[in-house]
Amino acid sequence: MAEHLSQSELDYPFKLLEYFNGFRVSKVIFSACELGVFDLLLKAQEPISAQHVAQELSCSEDGMERLMDALVGIEILEVETKDGTALYSSSDVANLYLAKGSGKSLHDMIIYQSQTIYPLWNNMADAVREGKNQNEKTFGLPSEDIFKALYRSEEEMLKFMGLMNSSWVLDGHDIVTAFNLSGFQKIVDLGGCTGALAREMAKAWPSSSVTVLDLPQVVEVAQKHFPQEDDAVEFQSGDFFSDEIPPADLYILARIIHDWPEEKCVTLLKKIHDSCRPGGGVLLVEALLFENRRGPVTAQIFSLNMLVQMEGRERPPSEYTRILEKTGFHNVQVCRTGKCYDTILATR
Amino acid sequence: MAEHLSQSELDYPFKLLEYFNGFRVSKVIFSACELGVFDLLLKAQEPISAQHVAQELSCSEDGMERLMDALVGIEILEVETKDGTALYSSSDVANLYLAKGSGKSLHDMIIYQSQTIYPLWNNMADAVREGKNQNEKTFGLPSEDIFKALYRSEEEMLKFMGLMNSSWVLDGHDIVTAFNLSGFQKIVDLGGCTGALAREMAKAWPSSSVTVLDLPQVVEVAQKHFPQEDDAVEFQSGDFFSDEIPPADLYILARIIHDWPEEKCVTLLKKIHDSCRPGGGVLLVEALLFENRRGPVTAQIFSLNMLVQMEGRERPPSEYTRILEKTGFHNVQVCRTGKCYDTILATR
Repeated sequence: MAEHLSQSELDYPFKLLEYFNGFRVSKVIFSACELGVFDLLLKAQEPISAQHVAQELSCSEDGMERLMDALVGIEILEVETKDGTALYSSSDVANLYLAKGSGKSLHDMIIYQSQTIYPLWNNMADAVREGKNQNEKTFGLPSEDIFKALYRSEEEMLKFMGLMNSSWVLDGHDIVTAFNLSGFQKIVDLGGCTGALAREMAKAWPSSSVTVLDLPQVVEVAQKHFPQEDDAVEFQSGDFFSDEIPPADLYILARIIHDWPEEKCVTLLKKIHDSCRPGGGVLLVEALLFENRRGPVTAQIFSLNMLVQMEGRERPPSEYTRILEKTGFHNVQVCRTGKCYDTILATR
Repeated sequence: MAEHLSQSELDYPFKLLEYFNGFRVSKVIFSACELGVFDLLLKAQEPISAQHVAQELSCSEDGMERLMDALVGIEILEVETKDGTALYSSSDVANLYLAKGSGKSLHDMIIYQSQTIYPLWNNMADAVREGKNQNEKTFGLPSEDIFKALYRSEEEMLKFMGLMNSSWVLDGHDIVTAFNLSGFQKIVDLGGCTGALAREMAKAWPSSSVTVLDLPQVVEVAQKHFPQEDDAVEFQSGDFFSDEIPPADLYILARIIHDWPEEKCVTLLKKIHDSCRPGGGVLLVEALLFENRRGPVTAQIFSLNMLVQMEGRERPPSEYTRILEKTGFHNVQVCRTGKCYDTILATR
């Protein structure tokens, strides 16, 4: 994405046209995911025709052939011709990240991006104009209570939780091992959703006990739809804004601070500081902007995502440091993982 | 787009995540275009702050700053810091292709892609499932008469015509000079819309006379909204399916055949063959697929665009050759331009 737009772009803007096509390339992958193409190809275990895929998935042959050919073009699928018939198979990348079965599947992330985030971004110009989220314009939902909007139905809640669950697949391990957290006994993941990151934490630091605190309806759905045998983490119901925060040695706030304007973040962090045991701390997990805000592109784009969907923003390390110090935390350490999400550790 | 998804993608799918972000990068550029950011930066002729841009364009400062920072991240804008204030300026590429004023502006193409094509692609999975366009689901329009859908209001018609007008900015010259057309006296561009390609033709082959034939309402809007002093092309009203086709030496069909299923193309080309003067021919302008359909990505994606919006498809050269020969044309010559659109010339 950060390839240089050089002089040759002036002669013919290939890179610019690729950017214009960006939404279509996203939707080629998203649509194939929604239709179950990658799952079927993984299950088939041998190359199959577009006709076969179309029949199995109750799709038009013509449409499926065009979709699969475009997936070949962007090197997500592979094709060979046998006796005059084109036979398609998945790439290793598609089997690992796009099919449903795999432990590294990003399927749920894709469904949420395709069905919720894509329509929201259609109103980005209005979000920039008004400086606020577009839940109302996009979905007819009140823009004041963002989590009421996010959790407007069990279906939508499940999708959002699927997104959160699948997104730690990629960065979870790097995040929980960015700092030596062996000294923290009791760890509480505030807004920990399905517990995906909390489980990475419990795995990396087995001598600690890890609890997920989230809204009652979230905990209920997490235990019903994302259950885990011999779960290493415990769940506790509560609203970290309005209820008491349980005492702990370390609090995780993963993609929580970026949802909110500074006042709410300050309120929350003060409350956490009050509950935090001596010697304890807080671990923030966010996509960090550069100090000059000129990158990374992913964090810049996430920040626009916060604008169009939430009330917050992405921030550079200095802003987190300032907010943390303002709320009583010290010794702020920043670790950029080089992936999408970074971490900040601060002690009480 | 065609970079190889290598083994390292298995460790961390950077390229895949870039594809997932594609729709957001498109919308960053599209939104800035819709809000007039590139026009203002061009007019300003010196670096200006996001605050200044926000004020001039009646936008939130916060939203504008995030949008402009993301544009810096993808190297569409440049930024420098002076006395602690970030001052933004356009890149040459943005001035040339994204601002409204320039003769090479793609502004109208972007508006159409952002406001019409982007929402249509939200229903791509259904288009593949049903094998038909999604005008009804997306815009509540009957899917049977596609041009009634395209031209559903003067505003929408203007936008579509703007798209067609601005898209020849890039490939027009290469297309009209791909073959030596000096031998053709009277040239008729069927469905020639605003006349943009016809004018390129008249400029390249000044001894020919060039006429645009299009629907009466299109000709009216073309002359009202896209007028040209001392216009080198003439306009004629007519429906090439239901009215007579005027006799000529060369017929241009630029992005017409790809709108329709084969039967309609055959009907149209037969009719053209009947009206064509001896020694005359037909020039098709389309994005050509490779024979094995494994690329180019642009043509594959356009073919999905035809699925979700129209009744046609993109085709490889052999299919055009077959259809042309079936309708009486001979001596089919293909020229790939290496850009988005290619040409095929055939004689009667």
